[in-house]
Amino acid sequence: MKKNVLIVGAGGVAQVVAHKCARNNDRFGAIHIASRTVEKCEAIVASVHEKKAMKTDGVLKAHALDALDIDATVRLIEETGSEIVINVGSAFVNMSVLSACIRTGAAYIDTAIHEDPLKICETPPWYGNYEWRRREEVEKAGITAILGAGFDPGVVNAYARLAEDEYLDEITSIDIVDVNAGDHGKWFSTNFDPEINFREFTGVVYSWQNGAWQTNKMFEVPREWDLPVVGKRPTYMTGHDEIHSLSARYPQADVRFWMGFGERYVQVFTVLKNLGLLSEQPVTTAEGQEVVPLKVVKACLPNPASLAPNYKGKTCIGDLVKGKKNGKDREVFIYNVADHEDAYREVGSQGISYTAGVPPVAAALLIADGTWDVKKMVNVEDLPPKPFLGLLAELGLPTSVQVNGEDQALDLAA
Amino acid sequence: MKKNVLIVGAGGVAQVVAHKCARNNDRFGAIHIASRTVEKCEAIVASVHEKKAMKTDGVLKAHALDALDIDATVRLIEETGSEIVINVGSAFVNMSVLSACIRTGAAYIDTAIHEDPLKICETPPWYGNYEWRRREEVEKAGITAILGAGFDPGVVNAYARLAEDEYLDEITSIDIVDVNAGDHGKWFSTNFDPEINFREFTGVVYSWQNGAWQTNKMFEVPREWDLPVVGKRPTYMTGHDEIHSLSARYPQADVRFWMGFGERYVQVFTVLKNLGLLSEQPVTTAEGQEVVPLKVVKACLPNPASLAPNYKGKTCIGDLVKGKKNGKDREVFIYNVADHEDAYREVGSQGISYTAGVPPVAAALLIADGTWDVKKMVNVEDLPPKPFLGLLAELGLPTSVQVNGEDQALDLAA
Repeated sequence: MKKNVLIVGAGGVAQVVAHKCARNNDRFGAIHIASRTVEKCEAIVASVHEKKAMKTDGVLKAHALDALDIDATVRLIEETGSEIVINVGSAFVNMSVLSACIRTGAAYIDTAIHEDPLKICETPPWYGNYEWRRREEVEKAGITAILGAGFDPGVVNAYARLAEDEYLDEITSIDIVDVNAGDHGKWFSTNFDPEINFREFTGVVYSWQNGAWQTNKMFEVPREWDLPVVGKRPTYMTGHDEIHSLSARYPQADVRFWMGFGERYVQVFTVLKNLGLLSEQPVTTAEGQEVVPLKVVKACLPNPASLAPNYKGKTCIGDLVKGKKNGKDREVFIYNVADHEDAYREVGSQGISYTAGVPPVAAALLIADGTWDVKKMVNVEDLPPKPFLGLLAELGLPTSVQVNGEDQALDLAA
Repeated sequence: MKKNVLIVGAGGVAQVVAHKCARNNDRFGAIHIASRTVEKCEAIVASVHEKKAMKTDGVLKAHALDALDIDATVRLIEETGSEIVINVGSAFVNMSVLSACIRTGAAYIDTAIHEDPLKICETPPWYGNYEWRRREEVEKAGITAILGAGFDPGVVNAYARLAEDEYLDEITSIDIVDVNAGDHGKWFSTNFDPEINFREFTGVVYSWQNGAWQTNKMFEVPREWDLPVVGKRPTYMTGHDEIHSLSARYPQADVRFWMGFGERYVQVFTVLKNLGLLSEQPVTTAEGQEVVPLKVVKACLPNPASLAPNYKGKTCIGDLVKGKKNGKDREVFIYNVADHEDAYREVGSQGISYTAGVPPVAAALLIADGTWDVKKMVNVEDLPPKPFLGLLAELGLPTSVQVNGEDQALDLAA
């Protein structure tokens, strides 16, 4: 009996998830997609049919759901007979959707840590604030819960595990780099919801170095990378979910995250932040209206979904892992290069949504066939990476490897 | 019988006007101050008493007034027996206050052109859009109406007229430069109401060159000035009220305005404008709230009045007028240097408000003693400049002159 899938969310990433599930619906049962605004789900369903993306005849259905409502989510999981829930809704609904999975026995997959809408940039340990507190509850319920199964976190965690399994006896540092060398043609736009995007960078920058959390300010620590295909690119050290889970597995290693930012982003962010326009706290206008500045900024910016048709160029995301092999220093760079135009042609989305949306579908396929159906709460680095990376290559996100700067063939057979 | 004065407005400039009227109340009758929010007027009255600024015993009284309501303004002028109205309220009330003056026979003084709140950066001819259409009406009523009697427009118009009267037979160009070399210690702030400040620069930049209006984009035409006291400063060509009236009097001359902008201002303005955050048109947030972005920006920025206590440094505003004298090329630079800390010590305001607020009081004194009581509508360059500049020197805004780069003594006796 093939497993039914429920997709929660209807943004750019959810669109990719829906397309990819549809293109592989011979390995799933019925596919359902639910969000607060049912019209957004219906638009995604229509775009799947427009691209004739359903591999075989089957169900693809839109639903209205307030995913903060655990009872309603339980009802929808039961009504649709879903055994796998791919949560790519807002970061605020993780805990309620997980609760519904625990109550119904469905497997749970998400792509980012839970956030409380009232707190910005919570301090580490991030998974420790919400997710990991529920490990026992998940194990008792006997369900599989895979946390952070997007690209970063997600694929980059599998890259680190691959380095551990195949290339290094001892790991001394993991530097994750995420560069979008694409051009959307707008003066400025965030690549996903501005509210979530800016929140990532308004707080303190955390990294794991010398066996402890270190703090810096945003845009304080720059580093230029010379990357395959996209070339030399400026990045800055930022905090990111996977620093926490990777530092828990590799506490002896330095774990840092480097995000590529163009000059324009730095300019816009600096002005908006310094003026207080990224604040989630309401201000009162001279006319007496109460307004949250960040929501007004969001309303003024382009809708990230509107970028896809004109997005050109490539992304490069990877892990530079350093350590020792047979007593000798060694460094391995494991990475993917994705193309915005290819993504748009295939699923009608830009490359950022594509890289985030394909991996949770691969994870769902591995739960469906039993490979990753581990009946407990895990992060991606806790799981065997080769089946995952093999599926990703098949689904459009191939992995490349350089050892000490030399390209090296990668055998993903288990 | 000394003339009673009504001050309309209760912002930073109105505070300076009130203090300066009080310090010269032996030459006026009763002084009244009115704005929509009577508490603001009361605070100004209190600050005058705190500084013991009333030169002789006399009336200084606060009133509530909606200056868009012509009948209410007429009633207040009549009740207070005011014969001179100094309008330093918002640029939106010029026409209604002028109407009330025409009906009551009171003299009218303002410091900036009328604006329609629904139109941003109206196109030239600026005075021709509203003010000059009412010249006949003013002359028929037999009242004096002095337009644009702040510093710029205002004092800089008198500087141009002084150049005509004393230094040049023929004028070929007038370049007005306004540099604030002060430091308020904030990351960013406008020096007066952000809504008015940004509106000045969101449209096309107009200048009068080669006998016609020329257009440029904002920050398109830079020019570095090397000024007395404040030194080398970057400026950009911008539109400004007085370009219109001066080009009407000196149509053969190029008339340009250069505003000093630090790098920070250019950075902030560029980001806010390009993101649409300076828009007066409402946007709708994802939550369905209708909001005018510029009003939110204003709510996030410091209140310009709060800058005064920590403002340090000087301003330099002047006219570089070129032409011929006795057949030879000659250039004359006529200017004032003001000090933020001096202004705060004397009247509790920063230097920008000080330079804007002192000149209309000088104009009122010249109406009160008959020198400028011309019973028609005029701009400042239409009036004899020496009595005005002589009074300004007495009131704290002395004039300096350089001819062909050499300092030259200025005799302001008529």
